[in-house]
Amino acid sequence: MAFDIVSSGIYLPKNRWSSEQMDAFLALPAGTTKKRFGVEYRHVAGETESAIEMARRAVEDCFSQTELALSDIDLVIYASGTHHQSLPYDASALLAALNAPFSIESFDLNSTCLSFLTALDLSHSLFLAKRHQRILIVTSEVATGVTLNRSFPPQQETATLFADGAAAFLLAANEQSPGLVTRRFETHHSGYPYCQIPGGGSFLNPHRISHDENLNVCRFFMDGKNLFRKVAQVLPAFLQDGLAQAQMTQDDIDYLLPHQASFRALEKMPKMTGFSASQVINRFSTLGNQVAASIPINLHLLRNEPDTKGKSVLLMGSAAGLSLGMGLIYL
Amino acid sequence: MAFDIVSSGIYLPKNRWSSEQMDAFLALPAGTTKKRFGVEYRHVAGETESAIEMARRAVEDCFSQTELALSDIDLVIYASGTHHQSLPYDASALLAALNAPFSIESFDLNSTCLSFLTALDLSHSLFLAKRHQRILIVTSEVATGVTLNRSFPPQQETATLFADGAAAFLLAANEQSPGLVTRRFETHHSGYPYCQIPGGGSFLNPHRISHDENLNVCRFFMDGKNLFRKVAQVLPAFLQDGLAQAQMTQDDIDYLLPHQASFRALEKMPKMTGFSASQVINRFSTLGNQVAASIPINLHLLRNEPDTKGKSVLLMGSAAGLSLGMGLIYL
Repeated sequence: MAFDIVSSGIYLPKNRWSSEQMDAFLALPAGTTKKRFGVEYRHVAGETESAIEMARRAVEDCFSQTELALSDIDLVIYASGTHHQSLPYDASALLAALNAPFSIESFDLNSTCLSFLTALDLSHSLFLAKRHQRILIVTSEVATGVTLNRSFPPQQETATLFADGAAAFLLAANEQSPGLVTRRFETHHSGYPYCQIPGGGSFLNPHRISHDENLNVCRFFMDGKNLFRKVAQVLPAFLQDGLAQAQMTQDDIDYLLPHQASFRALEKMPKMTGFSASQVINRFSTLGNQVAASIPINLHLLRNEPDTKGKSVLLMGSAAGLSLGMGLIYL
Repeated sequence: MAFDIVSSGIYLPKNRWSSEQMDAFLALPAGTTKKRFGVEYRHVAGETESAIEMARRAVEDCFSQTELALSDIDLVIYASGTHHQSLPYDASALLAALNAPFSIESFDLNSTCLSFLTALDLSHSLFLAKRHQRILIVTSEVATGVTLNRSFPPQQETATLFADGAAAFLLAANEQSPGLVTRRFETHHSGYPYCQIPGGGSFLNPHRISHDENLNVCRFFMDGKNLFRKVAQVLPAFLQDGLAQAQMTQDDIDYLLPHQASFRALEKMPKMTGFSASQVINRFSTLGNQVAASIPINLHLLRNEPDTKGKSVLLMGSAAGLSLGMGLIYL
């Protein structure tokens, strides 16, 4: 009916900030970022690790585990919540970095932290429509540049929250495979103000505002308290309605892989969803919130754990927007 | 089999720069921008005409011509080559501005100037996959902020090339309708360096570069000569192969609606493609290059001309990337 995951690869920046470094950076007593924000360490992209370079390396890792080559792909979806540059779109920058054959189609897709999941869902439809045989989804995020930076006063929660990374997933049409099922997406725009980087686009054009104003609007702003409250209010019903609509129960699901939104959200996830703590994938202490790369990086790691073949994984998350999304996939 | 266009709407900024104003701005002899760059006037977004506000007005125009309401839509694709802000994605900003119901799904799609055409093609697949009943595609571009601005030395070609505007298209599933056929997309990344806004993203993060450097990289750079040469080299074969693959000939096509890339590209279009000048839609003198909004704005205007109902229109274009795309639709 739809597709299989043929292969996947990831790239994590070499440099890591430990929780001790975070404590010092934020001028907090030793042990605070570990205890309060759940940080063991955070991968932080260095100067040579641009989003496109990390994406290129994740694609390399993905193809190192399959006999297929880039020329076997007929579509690349670059699905990320951050932009590498304003123009052209980032998929073309990646194809140039890969020196890919010209017949590959490509576009960028963005639904912030849900971009990978949205791309997986779109790919399902493209396979159903018999438009493509093999699709490569690439997600690459450099988030720390606007959260963990010495050029502006750091905010404790956002500085410790984000980390960088990239993932690539190769999908192939397979009529026998269920693909992504139990899919549901909603946009609750009342949560729109809670997560923002207001600058960087045509609205607050740097040519029309002062330097200081530009630096201020090119930072990540989060109203964590209201965001968490809103998600806690809408997510349980979203999940239950989605499962009911697909005539599924939680017993059909082996793992819940939530977007790694925050320490608090992941701690509360079992209670909020009814899944046991051992079913909920939580690598927040070492990987943090990697924007749209969280879901595919954690999915890649789960695929490579022993005895997970054939298991069912519910991918689910909330994203700045505020958007909710879910979809079930078999490993 | 696929979908119908139920309704469409556009928004053009109130303020227009005449070719005389352009001549004065560029310190050129009177008549130069008209003669050399084909400018009669250019719509330029004012301070209250953000991309999201123009998008909202185009959606309003679109719904003023149908009995359907926003609550009848199940997906909004915001398909643009420019970003309103860095985060969240712009579809969520639009849904907030429209105060849309929360059950609407949404995401952003970007393939620079081909974004609308890519969204139309994706919608076709989504309808085939029976995932959606009604899709709203919205394209809104504020390009002049980084091309026509008194804060940096103007470049004659890019200052006269771009204009702002927005369009909204409402599509509905219809199994009897052909939808978008004769579709073909390719990414020729050897043309990647020819059109760029290098800044505005994680690569040239304003927190890591100087103010002057940031202003410099947040401009539009174009190597017009090499870009045109590359397009002229690949476009004719792309068109002929696409038609041959779909077992179509140019006799099956009433109109060619090319992306309004440049004065020169549009002048050469009949010779490059074999279509007659009267078949080629060319409103470059008054609308300019509106990035991804060119194709839908011109398509909307063509739909509203007398005696075009049922006519076949080949949408085709090149985009920064460098990407090529085409698809045939019946009005």
